[in-house]
Amino acid sequence: MGIAIISPGRDASIWVDNIKKLDQSIDIQVYPEIKDFESVDAVILWQHPKGYLSSFPNLKLICSMGAGVDHILSDTSIPSHLPITRIVDERLTFSMTNYVIMGVLNYHRQLNRYQQDQQHKVWDMSNPELPVNVGIMGVGALGGDVVDKLRYLGINVVGLGNSVKQHLSYPYYEQSQMDDFLAEVNVLVCMLPLTPGTEGILNIDLFRKCNKGTYLINVARGKHLVEEDLILAINEGFISGALLDVFRQEPLPASHPFWEMREVTITPHIASVTNPSAAAPQIVDNYQRFKKGVELINQIDRKKGY
Amino acid sequence: MGIAIISPGRDASIWVDNIKKLDQSIDIQVYPEIKDFESVDAVILWQHPKGYLSSFPNLKLICSMGAGVDHILSDTSIPSHLPITRIVDERLTFSMTNYVIMGVLNYHRQLNRYQQDQQHKVWDMSNPELPVNVGIMGVGALGGDVVDKLRYLGINVVGLGNSVKQHLSYPYYEQSQMDDFLAEVNVLVCMLPLTPGTEGILNIDLFRKCNKGTYLINVARGKHLVEEDLILAINEGFISGALLDVFRQEPLPASHPFWEMREVTITPHIASVTNPSAAAPQIVDNYQRFKKGVELINQIDRKKGY
Repeated sequence: MGIAIISPGRDASIWVDNIKKLDQSIDIQVYPEIKDFESVDAVILWQHPKGYLSSFPNLKLICSMGAGVDHILSDTSIPSHLPITRIVDERLTFSMTNYVIMGVLNYHRQLNRYQQDQQHKVWDMSNPELPVNVGIMGVGALGGDVVDKLRYLGINVVGLGNSVKQHLSYPYYEQSQMDDFLAEVNVLVCMLPLTPGTEGILNIDLFRKCNKGTYLINVARGKHLVEEDLILAINEGFISGALLDVFRQEPLPASHPFWEMREVTITPHIASVTNPSAAAPQIVDNYQRFKKGVELINQIDRKKGY
Repeated sequence: MGIAIISPGRDASIWVDNIKKLDQSIDIQVYPEIKDFESVDAVILWQHPKGYLSSFPNLKLICSMGAGVDHILSDTSIPSHLPITRIVDERLTFSMTNYVIMGVLNYHRQLNRYQQDQQHKVWDMSNPELPVNVGIMGVGALGGDVVDKLRYLGINVVGLGNSVKQHLSYPYYEQSQMDDFLAEVNVLVCMLPLTPGTEGILNIDLFRKCNKGTYLINVARGKHLVEEDLILAINEGFISGALLDVFRQEPLPASHPFWEMREVTITPHIASVTNPSAAAPQIVDNYQRFKKGVELINQIDRKKGY
């Protein structure tokens, strides 16, 4: 038996190398050159073709190549009894956290303003800092790290999540308290998992509940944001600007209005990138655990969707 | 007896208010409306006219309005027996640290590159992070805080100072080991006090010892940098770019080449700004200590120059 890697359009060879380095005995096939479907008992996925997994009659384990599993759960053809694991990678957390902090500090210290002043040779020392109260939507492994690091820098943070959490050392709101959460915040950071309950959550109804001039950072998924609603919210003044790393369609089409909006800063889905050398050990570990019948690590809860 | 505030061109009324709030009994005169020179036993200074303090026959205490005292020590007419204090302000530390972290993260995550890509509607996911090894020149109250916070974010840091320090939890070099220090670093942050020994320290000889492409951040004083040498070092490739908050002449003259250099980001001396409501208590405390003959706080060592 063995593993199939299915990540169309991406070079899987670095994943093969990293897995082989850890366990030479694992047989690996790579999409689209898969020939022996019966021998595959585990798949490693990133944006696989929907319905494709039904080709594997002996499939027992599904591993996401990254932190997200929305690309797997959106394929409703996958039998619900199959366990799904994701990657929890310190390096991925490091990258995501420092990207968000960069965005928060650039807003706080008004980098855009000073860049424009430089263009016009303007020396204006007035009001050098904007007050900043950061709201993190989604305080799991990634969001929780951002909360911790921002607080260490002395920056006010509140969190929002969908479960009851107690004994937290910072203000926390459940999703039902969204209005109270938004009232506390002038920098809104989306780090939610993408689920049917969070898709399109960043829409005009939410933006109109924000404090005027709130700054948006989206590092989660493009589908969290209703993109035309962000443009409307900027025009209405509820949102002053945004740092966006993810989009409904990637690469962002050349015709998209975001490219030319001076309020919007675009990065090409690089806030955090899974590192195969950090991720492969988790996948090999889980494959060996599955073989031994031992509890998996980083297994997701399909009901919650993450 | 009483205090004189001497800060030409700045509005001192907020300082008067903050001091009066703490101790109504202190008599305060403000330059240039000082009439009773004999009654002044303490002065609060920011860039006073050189030689002016000789007008005060009963002067016993000199307080800087900010973290730096170079503006005082450069006035050689001031008798060497007079104690000089400076401001150590948590809020000032907060601002300085977060400014430096902003600069480090924008370099690390290549904000300039992505801003240019956005202008040209380019979606390029390759190599999203630059390796970063930060060298902090000057690890006192301010520099030490930057070291601590950067390390908490998981970023490599080494320090440089002019005294022997032991039991530090990070790599530290003395000024005599400058070459070894520079070899470790690709982001160089100047947080040194301005003294005769550090003036012009950022010059072409130092830059040519840097790793090719080193990024410079100067938040200390304009006189630390030989400005024409930075331009030369950028042309030679030793320095890839710079974030500069301080300049030889401020406001930076419209004719200065920095304004139009795309490698240089300019801010108008706003990295950290002394907050009178945080600083006034330290000055009042020191004035009362002086009256009681008790040891002063935040007194500087004139031999060291900080």
